[in-house]
Amino acid sequence: MIPFISQLPADEENIWIAALNQALPDENIIAVTELKPADKKHCLLAIVANPNTELLAEFENLTWLHSIWAGVENLMMSLADSPIDVVRLIDPTLSRAMSEAVLAWSLYLHRDMPRYAKQQHNKHWQQHQLVPASERRIGILGLGELGQVSARQLQQNGFKVMGWSRTAKKIPNIGTYSGNSGLAEMVAQSDILVCLLPLTPTTRGMVNKKLLAQLPQGSAVINFARGGIINTDELLNALNSKHLSHAVLDVFDHEPLSIDSGLWQHPDITILPHISAPTNLNSACDIVAKNIISFRATGQIPKSVSKVNGY
Amino acid sequence: MIPFISQLPADEENIWIAALNQALPDENIIAVTELKPADKKHCLLAIVANPNTELLAEFENLTWLHSIWAGVENLMMSLADSPIDVVRLIDPTLSRAMSEAVLAWSLYLHRDMPRYAKQQHNKHWQQHQLVPASERRIGILGLGELGQVSARQLQQNGFKVMGWSRTAKKIPNIGTYSGNSGLAEMVAQSDILVCLLPLTPTTRGMVNKKLLAQLPQGSAVINFARGGIINTDELLNALNSKHLSHAVLDVFDHEPLSIDSGLWQHPDITILPHISAPTNLNSACDIVAKNIISFRATGQIPKSVSKVNGY
Repeated sequence: MIPFISQLPADEENIWIAALNQALPDENIIAVTELKPADKKHCLLAIVANPNTELLAEFENLTWLHSIWAGVENLMMSLADSPIDVVRLIDPTLSRAMSEAVLAWSLYLHRDMPRYAKQQHNKHWQQHQLVPASERRIGILGLGELGQVSARQLQQNGFKVMGWSRTAKKIPNIGTYSGNSGLAEMVAQSDILVCLLPLTPTTRGMVNKKLLAQLPQGSAVINFARGGIINTDELLNALNSKHLSHAVLDVFDHEPLSIDSGLWQHPDITILPHISAPTNLNSACDIVAKNIISFRATGQIPKSVSKVNGY
Repeated sequence: MIPFISQLPADEENIWIAALNQALPDENIIAVTELKPADKKHCLLAIVANPNTELLAEFENLTWLHSIWAGVENLMMSLADSPIDVVRLIDPTLSRAMSEAVLAWSLYLHRDMPRYAKQQHNKHWQQHQLVPASERRIGILGLGELGQVSARQLQQNGFKVMGWSRTAKKIPNIGTYSGNSGLAEMVAQSDILVCLLPLTPTTRGMVNKKLLAQLPQGSAVINFARGGIINTDELLNALNSKHLSHAVLDVFDHEPLSIDSGLWQHPDITILPHISAPTNLNSACDIVAKNIISFRATGQIPKSVSKVNGY
């Protein structure tokens, strides 16, 4: 018996439970609300999507959680001192969707789409010089699975790509930077800065006034990671002073973005409703099923998220 | 002595003449307006950009023209019965810019950017299902240099790509179609139809009511070729009836697009000011120089445009 614990709307939760049961015919996946108290002690693992972690305390023999999401920052914060391991979704379908989004909105900025949209609104016909992709420098913050796949696809499409990670990494044809000095060095050369970092205590507010000031005049920012990584007020200042030309924001401190937010109508911000890389039901269920079948066969918990680094 | 004949603004014409003289130090390229009448009989060739073809009659020994543009439909129409050959610009830099534009605006449609822009305007937060690129069918009209390079780049980024040409062609990993029956077959499967055809008497008005009706419900059209290929009124009908979801138009019957045009404010049309693949001064001058040096050395006119096909 495997409880499914989430804060998803009921209809969405039911779709997941049905799909997971289909992918795991030898298991019984059941909504946590429908589980009998006496059965809880038999549960060794749970499948979760940003769960209310207080519910976990009732499962005395729980050793690990499988998240159907890639981002697990809330879980890691709540379970920092718990022995329960967290396995996050690592899905090539998701990486493909993300690297496609990074390419799509990099091209959106590279080919001046926001500027031409304003011109259309004003019935204004004016051509702007085309910068070759080979001279357009894109810096990626975060070189995990998503960052690496995105960097490669940008590079294959002719862009000059750089990437930054906390600890040093080497990737063919990508200029890599690490640590604090590497961060300043890469940011100072980034015409487009793409944020793909996990949200951790270290990355919270990392894209702040100081970092934004290091970007070249007229550069742009894309945030496909988590809202908390960017200091929104300081981003707005950088846009309003015209130091930055544009920001593409897919993630926010509170989602859905409040109707009262001033971000919606900012002329130099593109708002997306957290759509850069949606979880794909089918591929996610296949991956969760594979991990659980392997656990049942071997007793080994799949590779889990580091409690020290938070990713 | 080589006359430069164009209808460009004087400042732009001077930039071209200076750059061409620099690329061809052994030649004297001179604005046609500054040429002495007595010198005209010494001119074997001219460099042109959509010239007033009446001016050509004064050059009795002219055997060929080198266009600094890729599109030469006006020239081909005027010179249909003339012995003067027309060499058009075939520039890999231009092909790269075009295939990048095809990818950029295909992703724009594929990733629902027009829809999310409307939602932002209405402060509306709603996610739409992401179609995998492998299930997004893109049909390209025209498999010349630009069409082939564009098809390849789309295919490398995961799209399902098809292409149509008047005469049959084979391209690896691209479904190819030809002739009238092939046209209907491809169009009926195209979620995004990209127009890269040359404008000829045969292609004028080719994207009409009948062809648009063959597109799947909800599909979109991109025109990066010439305005005259699409029947604008019939396109508007297809958009207004919601048979088509969107059109991206970079080219128009009359450019700049008149401020009175209703296209500017149509909610389902993206207007671009003819920027998909601008001629690159430096690379164009290098190519023109190479062709002219080869002509002086061998007496052979470079590969010219077919007077029969118009391309």
